[in-house]
Amino acid sequence: MKYKDDSYTLHTDLYQINMTESYWKDGKHERKAIFDLYFRKLPFGNGYAVFAGLARIIDFLNKFQFSESDLAYLQKEVGYSEEFISYLKSIRFTGCVRAMKEGELVFANEPIVRIEAPLAEAQLIETALLNIVNYQTLIATKASRVKQVIGKGKAMEFGTRRAHEFDAAIWGTRAAYIGGFDATSNVRAGKLFGIPVAGTHAHAMVQAYRSEYDAFHAYAKAHKDCVFLVDTYDTLKSGVPTAIKVAKELGDRINFVGIRLDSGDLAYLSKEARKMLDEAGFSDTQIIASNDLDEYTIMNLKAQGAKINAWGVGTKLITAYDQAALGAVYKLVAIEDENGELVDTIKISGNPEKVTTPGLKKVYRIINNGNGKAEGDYIAMNDESPQQEERLKMFHPVHTYISKFVTNFEARELHHDIYKDGKLVYEVPSLQEVQAYASDSLDLLWEEYKRTMNPEEYPVDLSQKCWDNKMRQIAEVQKKVNSLS
Amino acid sequence: MKYKDDSYTLHTDLYQINMTESYWKDGKHERKAIFDLYFRKLPFGNGYAVFAGLARIIDFLNKFQFSESDLAYLQKEVGYSEEFISYLKSIRFTGCVRAMKEGELVFANEPIVRIEAPLAEAQLIETALLNIVNYQTLIATKASRVKQVIGKGKAMEFGTRRAHEFDAAIWGTRAAYIGGFDATSNVRAGKLFGIPVAGTHAHAMVQAYRSEYDAFHAYAKAHKDCVFLVDTYDTLKSGVPTAIKVAKELGDRINFVGIRLDSGDLAYLSKEARKMLDEAGFSDTQIIASNDLDEYTIMNLKAQGAKINAWGVGTKLITAYDQAALGAVYKLVAIEDENGELVDTIKISGNPEKVTTPGLKKVYRIINNGNGKAEGDYIAMNDESPQQEERLKMFHPVHTYISKFVTNFEARELHHDIYKDGKLVYEVPSLQEVQAYASDSLDLLWEEYKRTMNPEEYPVDLSQKCWDNKMRQIAEVQKKVNSLS
Repeated sequence: MKYKDDSYTLHTDLYQINMTESYWKDGKHERKAIFDLYFRKLPFGNGYAVFAGLARIIDFLNKFQFSESDLAYLQKEVGYSEEFISYLKSIRFTGCVRAMKEGELVFANEPIVRIEAPLAEAQLIETALLNIVNYQTLIATKASRVKQVIGKGKAMEFGTRRAHEFDAAIWGTRAAYIGGFDATSNVRAGKLFGIPVAGTHAHAMVQAYRSEYDAFHAYAKAHKDCVFLVDTYDTLKSGVPTAIKVAKELGDRINFVGIRLDSGDLAYLSKEARKMLDEAGFSDTQIIASNDLDEYTIMNLKAQGAKINAWGVGTKLITAYDQAALGAVYKLVAIEDENGELVDTIKISGNPEKVTTPGLKKVYRIINNGNGKAEGDYIAMNDESPQQEERLKMFHPVHTYISKFVTNFEARELHHDIYKDGKLVYEVPSLQEVQAYASDSLDLLWEEYKRTMNPEEYPVDLSQKCWDNKMRQIAEVQKKVNSLS
Repeated sequence: MKYKDDSYTLHTDLYQINMTESYWKDGKHERKAIFDLYFRKLPFGNGYAVFAGLARIIDFLNKFQFSESDLAYLQKEVGYSEEFISYLKSIRFTGCVRAMKEGELVFANEPIVRIEAPLAEAQLIETALLNIVNYQTLIATKASRVKQVIGKGKAMEFGTRRAHEFDAAIWGTRAAYIGGFDATSNVRAGKLFGIPVAGTHAHAMVQAYRSEYDAFHAYAKAHKDCVFLVDTYDTLKSGVPTAIKVAKELGDRINFVGIRLDSGDLAYLSKEARKMLDEAGFSDTQIIASNDLDEYTIMNLKAQGAKINAWGVGTKLITAYDQAALGAVYKLVAIEDENGELVDTIKISGNPEKVTTPGLKKVYRIINNGNGKAEGDYIAMNDESPQQEERLKMFHPVHTYISKFVTNFEARELHHDIYKDGKLVYEVPSLQEVQAYASDSLDLLWEEYKRTMNPEEYPVDLSQKCWDNKMRQIAEVQKKVNSLS
């Protein structure tokens, strides 16, 4: 890292700058463009995703400006012209952003973030925005799945050593907190985000003392609250009996908070250890487990009656091991034409699910006033007002010939103004508020959408106007393509 | 990011600081400790891994120092005592590091990095070192697999938008370059590491012009070298014919370098597009493909005779999608006792492969002077000199009752001095040198170890002395555990 003025503005794909150059040379760089950021498929077979990443997006956009060394690199190494470089030097983010709140539940094909900005700016920020949302939303969603299985037990994020480099460790553990986790082992994340930190000691400490007895005593000398790691040599023959012995010797001088199991048959060991602790009079001492846990192993351990009070979840959470990428995309849905009119655009594809939904749109959560539950989400054109309608027609998400009418509902808009003309107008909530918001949002969903396996598909509908507009655009493109052949 | 003096020194697990506190309170923090960093299993079923991460480790260790805000957080929020905080304030890295060079081929259970440092320091740096090596080595290895399948074609890393946050994008693409990739789309990585950058334009540009014809012309206006993306509407009916038409119209004013396919049946489309380009007289125009590629899809496309010259590899590489974590660990293998003697330590486990190999050790690659190929790696105690022996006994890695004798060999030491007593003594090679070193190292391996599927297992042997020492330690621990029950 040899540059003092390194900036994240270059954290983009080269083609974004190439396109910007073309727009600029062609005088189109200032045209207003609308981009939607969304994903096409929920991760992990889950019934919902938890949006995370907005705080990092705001930090990125606030600082969006090419530094001197960025510009020097682009000119000297990549070879852009001096005139284009002076244009890049002047660029700041001057657009509007509407987005869901962090912690919002989000579903396939609904815009999470909507960018309305000069074409060049909108293009230059794409890569970073996708990078942020893809990772943080993936981890928040995984964490939410794991936390739902854990239930009331304590969920701790322990994955830093296996994370994909430093940023993933800290932004991932922040996302895990949004998804419902209680604590992290990463001290820097604790400092930066105010997440409670957790951890006791490692096998190395027992090895350094070459004795569990000495190591536990040494730990207790410096710490009133003690959790002893009991599996360095032999959990039931050596670790647990030694922990109990030390705790008895020290009596009130320590709080024997818990033991930690990090290997072996966690179901069997936890049950045996529980018995030993109870028999020794330590029925309040907790059992903490770790070792490649995820929602499946935790559910399985619970089914086996494992006596585990707190769960350290590492690799499988922080890397989203069973599905390491969310495929969020960023698509142009409207562009200003030469007369200053906003014109809708579409991208066609051989895969029907990849066809974009044109135009400036809004997203609503339709909440039934009778039972307080969400009936589905509703995507409408910007100028529609579903909240003022008496009854809404909602289609089945797959079998669209099935539909239902909803009356007595609240149409809650999911987008909020974040930037207006380049100015941040959003008050960023505390991380604790974001976590609480995610938890409250889950309460709106029927259990059928929340179960870990084979959840029901939550309805996300287009309004009739939005649907008709999409069909018209498809027909136009097909006509144009057919005329070429 | 509200701290001006944020440092990576807090990028550690809380238990490292808790243990440090205990060592310090007990007067053991300065005892010399030896830790080995290694992994137990090669990723992706590959026959080798490519080590990456040393440059980042050096950057981390050079700056290792708690900042004022770090210390304030630890004291006020976590609750450590003022005396302990003043001790932490004084800590710098004063130890010795020996490590393999970046780009070195590395196998299971051999120490990649060896730390010899005061116990407290060695413990505090563990998490960051693992975080770095686990991710970067994983991606360098994945890239090497992909590059071996690509062969002479151009390999481009296009994954930033799906990477696990910002650091993964740039350190991952650097690792991909070490593993043999030719270019990256990430401009910041180009600037920071001198990696060639690549990219042209996206679907959004075609949509912004609402016409491929206009978009290609606009691109050509600003760029002499043109690669046109041809799949926005219909590749063969619209995209390729339009690209050819524009190239013919512009003649010598552009270099029609290539077309890019980003969706659909890449085998079919590339063959048809190749014919169309050839028929139009553009036989030098290349076909570039992208869309969820990895070593398996590329091998498959090649088997189908796809006409693809350059490959953009994104998600599957940068996230190591099919195995998103490498399980490198950091284990205490020796510790200074109260008399200043270095004593070997071991960690026993129910899983035999998790038992550590005690003691201060060195790693050698045994190269047959006759054919220039590696016979295997050889782990010996620090005071052994296999390079001076006439013949070495090498065991089969799984069936240890099978062994062979090697004569006329070179025993090449794989560790190099990186830090001596806290001072960096290693000259960091350029990234191009690292890439070349990785490529040369691959030439030492028989093809049987390099194939993508079911490679032969490369031998990694312990010397007799090293093996005997390990067995003695195991016996001692088992005696101790048995005496407890």
